[in-house]
Amino acid sequence: MASHSTNMRVKLPLLCILLEAVTIILFAVFVRYDHETDARAWHHEMQVHNESNIDNDFYFRYPSFQDVHTMIFIGFGFLMTFLKRYGFSSVAFNFLLAAFGLQWSTLIQGFFHGFHDGKIHVGVESMINADFCTGAVLISFGAVLGKASPVQLLVMTLIEVTLFGINEFIILNIVGAKDAGGSMTIHTFGAYFGLMVSRVLYRSQLDKSRHKEGSVYHSDLFAMIGTIYLWMFWPSFNSAITAHGDDQHRTVLNTYYSLAACTLATFAMSALLSGEGKLDMVHIQNAALAGGVAVGTSAEMMLTPFGAMIAGFLAGVISTLGFKFLTPLLDSKLRIQDTCGVHNLHGMPGVMGALIGAIVASLATAEIYGAGMDDVFPLIADGTRTPQSQGVFQIIALFVALGFAIVGGIVVGLLLKIPLMGSPSDTQCFEDEIFWEVPEDEGGHGEMMAVNAEDNEKQLHA
Amino acid sequence: MASHSTNMRVKLPLLCILLEAVTIILFAVFVRYDHETDARAWHHEMQVHNESNIDNDFYFRYPSFQDVHTMIFIGFGFLMTFLKRYGFSSVAFNFLLAAFGLQWSTLIQGFFHGFHDGKIHVGVESMINADFCTGAVLISFGAVLGKASPVQLLVMTLIEVTLFGINEFIILNIVGAKDAGGSMTIHTFGAYFGLMVSRVLYRSQLDKSRHKEGSVYHSDLFAMIGTIYLWMFWPSFNSAITAHGDDQHRTVLNTYYSLAACTLATFAMSALLSGEGKLDMVHIQNAALAGGVAVGTSAEMMLTPFGAMIAGFLAGVISTLGFKFLTPLLDSKLRIQDTCGVHNLHGMPGVMGALIGAIVASLATAEIYGAGMDDVFPLIADGTRTPQSQGVFQIIALFVALGFAIVGGIVVGLLLKIPLMGSPSDTQCFEDEIFWEVPEDEGGHGEMMAVNAEDNEKQLHA
Amino acid sequence: MASHSTNMRVKLPLLCILLEAVTIILFAVFVRYDHETDARAWHHEMQVHNESNIDNDFYFRYPSFQDVHTMIFIGFGFLMTFLKRYGFSSVAFNFLLAAFGLQWSTLIQGFFHGFHDGKIHVGVESMINADFCTGAVLISFGAVLGKASPVQLLVMTLIEVTLFGINEFIILNIVGAKDAGGSMTIHTFGAYFGLMVSRVLYRSQLDKSRHKEGSVYHSDLFAMIGTIYLWMFWPSFNSAITAHGDDQHRTVLNTYYSLAACTLATFAMSALLSGEGKLDMVHIQNAALAGGVAVGTSAEMMLTPFGAMIAGFLAGVISTLGFKFLTPLLDSKLRIQDTCGVHNLHGMPGVMGALIGAIVASLATAEIYGAGMDDVFPLIADGTRTPQSQGVFQIIALFVALGFAIVGGIVVGLLLKIPLMGSPSDTQCFEDEIFWEVPEDEGGHGEMMAVNAEDNEKQLHA
Repeated sequence: MASHSTNMRVKLPLLCILLEAVTIILFAVFVRYDHETDARAWHHEMQVHNESNIDNDFYFRYPSFQDVHTMIFIGFGFLMTFLKRYGFSSVAFNFLLAAFGLQWSTLIQGFFHGFHDGKIHVGVESMINADFCTGAVLISFGAVLGKASPVQLLVMTLIEVTLFGINEFIILNIVGAKDAGGSMTIHTFGAYFGLMVSRVLYRSQLDKSRHKEGSVYHSDLFAMIGTIYLWMFWPSFNSAITAHGDDQHRTVLNTYYSLAACTLATFAMSALLSGEGKLDMVHIQNAALAGGVAVGTSAEMMLTPFGAMIAGFLAGVISTLGFKFLTPLLDSKLRIQDTCGVHNLHGMPGVMGALIGAIVASLATAEIYGAGMDDVFPLIADGTRTPQSQGVFQIIALFVALGFAIVGGIVVGLLLKIPLMGSPSDTQCFEDEIFWEVPEDEGGHGEMMAVNAEDNEKQLHA
Repeated sequence: MASHSTNMRVKLPLLCILLEAVTIILFAVFVRYDHETDARAWHHEMQVHNESNIDNDFYFRYPSFQDVHTMIFIGFGFLMTFLKRYGFSSVAFNFLLAAFGLQWSTLIQGFFHGFHDGKIHVGVESMINADFCTGAVLISFGAVLGKASPVQLLVMTLIEVTLFGINEFIILNIVGAKDAGGSMTIHTFGAYFGLMVSRVLYRSQLDKSRHKEGSVYHSDLFAMIGTIYLWMFWPSFNSAITAHGDDQHRTVLNTYYSLAACTLATFAMSALLSGEGKLDMVHIQNAALAGGVAVGTSAEMMLTPFGAMIAGFLAGVISTLGFKFLTPLLDSKLRIQDTCGVHNLHGMPGVMGALIGAIVASLATAEIYGAGMDDVFPLIADGTRTPQSQGVFQIIALFVALGFAIVGGIVVGLLLKIPLMGSPSDTQCFEDEIFWEVPEDEGGHGEMMAVNAEDNEKQLHA
Repeated sequence: MASHSTNMRVKLPLLCILLEAVTIILFAVFVRYDHETDARAWHHEMQVHNESNIDNDFYFRYPSFQDVHTMIFIGFGFLMTFLKRYGFSSVAFNFLLAAFGLQWSTLIQGFFHGFHDGKIHVGVESMINADFCTGAVLISFGAVLGKASPVQLLVMTLIEVTLFGINEFIILNIVGAKDAGGSMTIHTFGAYFGLMVSRVLYRSQLDKSRHKEGSVYHSDLFAMIGTIYLWMFWPSFNSAITAHGDDQHRTVLNTYYSLAACTLATFAMSALLSGEGKLDMVHIQNAALAGGVAVGTSAEMMLTPFGAMIAGFLAGVISTLGFKFLTPLLDSKLRIQDTCGVHNLHGMPGVMGALIGAIVASLATAEIYGAGMDDVFPLIADGTRTPQSQGVFQIIALFVALGFAIVGGIVVGLLLKIPLMGSPSDTQCFEDEIFWEVPEDEGGHGEMMAVNAEDNEKQLHA
């Protein structure tokens, strides 16, 4: 069944071992425990600063880290299992890309953010940031889901993580924008990057695999595991690296309300738009999450609960509309095949989140933030910027993210066209069997055979 | 397939948008960040009271909140996916009701508990309480599972949340009862409320849908995801809003032991009662959780570990017996059709939990509680009540909960009989297809077709 | 269908009720709240030591406990659902054994570790340790999966937990070895114990059930839920009972890196070793986890991030090789039938973890650990031992674990041969139907029937 080109026996082991070996060598040279993870340093710090163990950042952030970790590995992984015969690849390639991405990202982000005396210092915050970066990669993965080999995906991860680190450094450290939950750095960047890759890799004959692009009953339930985990833990995602105290607390609260309002908008729009007044699982699985993206920049700000709800509600409406009307247009008019609809879940809500962040930043006053201004807007607190100029810089950051995503995605797309990377043919898309030993459910029974039967039927009719 | 009355194209969007719009307006008028979520207020408080960020209630309660959140959205949602062709509705209506319920509950509970200077103050504790309230609604949902439209369910949520808030206020603030894990306010109230709704909506022709009321192999495994999450995180549920320190710690411990003992009782009873000495998944999925309900009131008290185990063991026995003998009787004699058997998991164990709470309260002594009395029984600590009178008030609280549940459930049941709400006909119960675009597993294969084949067979035999 | 011997109507209830009754009586006599769980004691301690509630160990460890709890009940439970028709037993017997094991372990570990004034004191740390102990039992369960009755499994749990407590006491308190994540006490012990049980219970006619030993498409996806949860939360497992502060923080970091590197090694080896250059789900589900086992002893030490990655990478390689070459050999040459391949996931990586721990311990210096030496190696810190002698004692501990596992496993295996325990016959292995009321998916459809059809086919061909 597997043609020569998709045979992974040599390519994938070579690439995995090469990437891991280089990573380990770079870790050996550059990566060290930070002052809260190192035995000597932490005990020294406690003594000198009269601190106790509870002051270790671990206790402020580790529960949030594990929620983020769950979103990355269970959330993204299972959300993509909706395809009827691509579940193994969805959850396991997600696993592979994230496992490599978090290591590579520790190095890239470390060079830009955590470089002290020639060393990269790691701890719970670097773990969260590394997981965040893999989130962008997994969003891009959603755009090309079912259409790329694991070798292509690892190459994409390598470059996308690198560009993510540069883009993030420019946005946060040079432009001085705020983006705690990554509306710009993660969602906008990841979505448009993936869409550009998908554009360059456009498959004019993808119709030959379309009958496998749908779901079956239980694959939709597996996908709901991903949806619900993403939805529940999004407050932890947006708040994971905000300042201690009110900032983490407020970010959680805003995200929670935004998502709740988004869910009602999604059910409303789904019933309104779907055929015969029925609900569509694609909308519920995806659009109900847009509320988390839409407050990714602004949730740490004094957005107000009802402001968060308005943002979430609008995101749910826009996202559902996108699934209904825009995704088919992107395919037919712009030649962008977006398997998971990441443009609707991450692209448009990401841009929306950036704009909301700019507006809320420009409305910041000393009256509202008090002594907490320094945590949220340090450049306003120290007088470097007015709220209005902070708002302008937030907008600039959005364009930086879009620029990196579009140029980076095109470059990576072209790179992935190089032969020998095991890209599946147009008839082999959305299909586990080319990369996996799939259990044989022989005898005309079971779901896989059901799909095969369907294939046969379609071929007979063709 | 969908008859006019179950068509959701107009009704559901209208209702969702109306509810969300009203909610947002009320939030805009009334809801504000509390002193630990507001940037200015928290920084002011830290300065004035010489506190540090770790004193923010967020760090005491957020991990528990996320466990509770997981119980509400994954636990309840997947527990109800056991039905062979109602999985989409189970997990997604659960999602919709909880998403609306937590917003509405923030307002209702806020008016009763968190109203300061005309404003409702929100933070992690209000988030937990809002999630708790949705738990009661989801219990009621279990009683009518498969028999109500999303419009009916949203109307039920609107009123049940409102009554929950009033009932809870009376029990906790006027009667002065303790009920941290909600044996009375959540489980007893939610169960009898749902049973009364189901009674009023009694379907004499439900047999026409009975063949769809069972499970298939993989739907039972999806349901076990719900069961295990509820079981694991119940200690967090019962302890989420108890006092800091020993109270949270002890509540967790008691609940953990109660559930472990309950599990052994459930396996014992299931093997004893089932046919041919085999175990029944319905018992394991449900009765093994009764131990969490049965210590919902008393787990924060000095129940002792072995006391918790006895409570849990008895709950498992009673609950399994209920599934075997009482559920069929409720249907045939009392005309109460209880799809998920909430009477066995929440009703009887809830009443039992209230009684255990009353007994343990009446045994409280200064010797046992020391300076910790003030956290558990403030009215005993300040001399307002004797332990015995506290016990009596606990019993009074149980009757308040039962009264609100029964009257409220009847009223809501009557309201839901109003036409135009899209109630499915007796032949359409336990069926996703009337509300969802279900993927077509064509050609006589896959589980949905299996069910259809079974339908055909039954119709032939009829 | 169920032969007399596997009928559970009398045996299972009797055993469950007996075990629970004895446990409750022993709890009543011996188990008490510890100083952080008891109302009087904690309030007294806060007053005397000028502590506040945040100093309660609950806030340092409860999030880790819930991650460990999830690994035990969801992780192990769903990992074993890969078998096509043994999903009910996998997740539910896992549930039963863990629920009993944690209670019994609280007693056994309490007698050895927590005995003060004739009482066992319990709190969050005893909860974690009890869950840890059940982990060893569930590893052994993996070796005999599908081949033992719940009565046999409960008897195994009773004895294995008891031996676990003795073994752990010798290793930690007498030998003075360190083993925070249990490479020796949990993984090595649990794996070789289970393998010895499986050896004694060798079934020469198991081929009669082999056609049921595989997976179907969706059972592999259920298993991936288990895999991913184990993978994500392993950092919490290894760090759950290490010292506060840098120790917990560093252990998490090391485990996270080890697992990430292990995942790349597993994908590389799986593609290299599987047929036609395809990946094998068995490898991804299991070998990718070996990195957590391999740093179970050393993760709390100053292993360095790249050291952790090397350990994880090697573990992934060894484990995948084991699945490919060693498991078949164990069966054919040594007559050890290892259903889940626990030798590859827990056995070899456990031994490897012990050796790595010995090496890293022997390299400890005051320069590296500073004032943190006391937390990691108290006997080196107080001058009782040199690092080299600590390394030697670590090796001794490994042999203690192996000895207890092998002797204990043989004894238990012989005991389980006693008739009347309901052991399934050789044709009934890997089969839910003998212990469960399985929903009838009639009419030649659904997975269960698919399997039956396959059976029929095989019988026809035989």
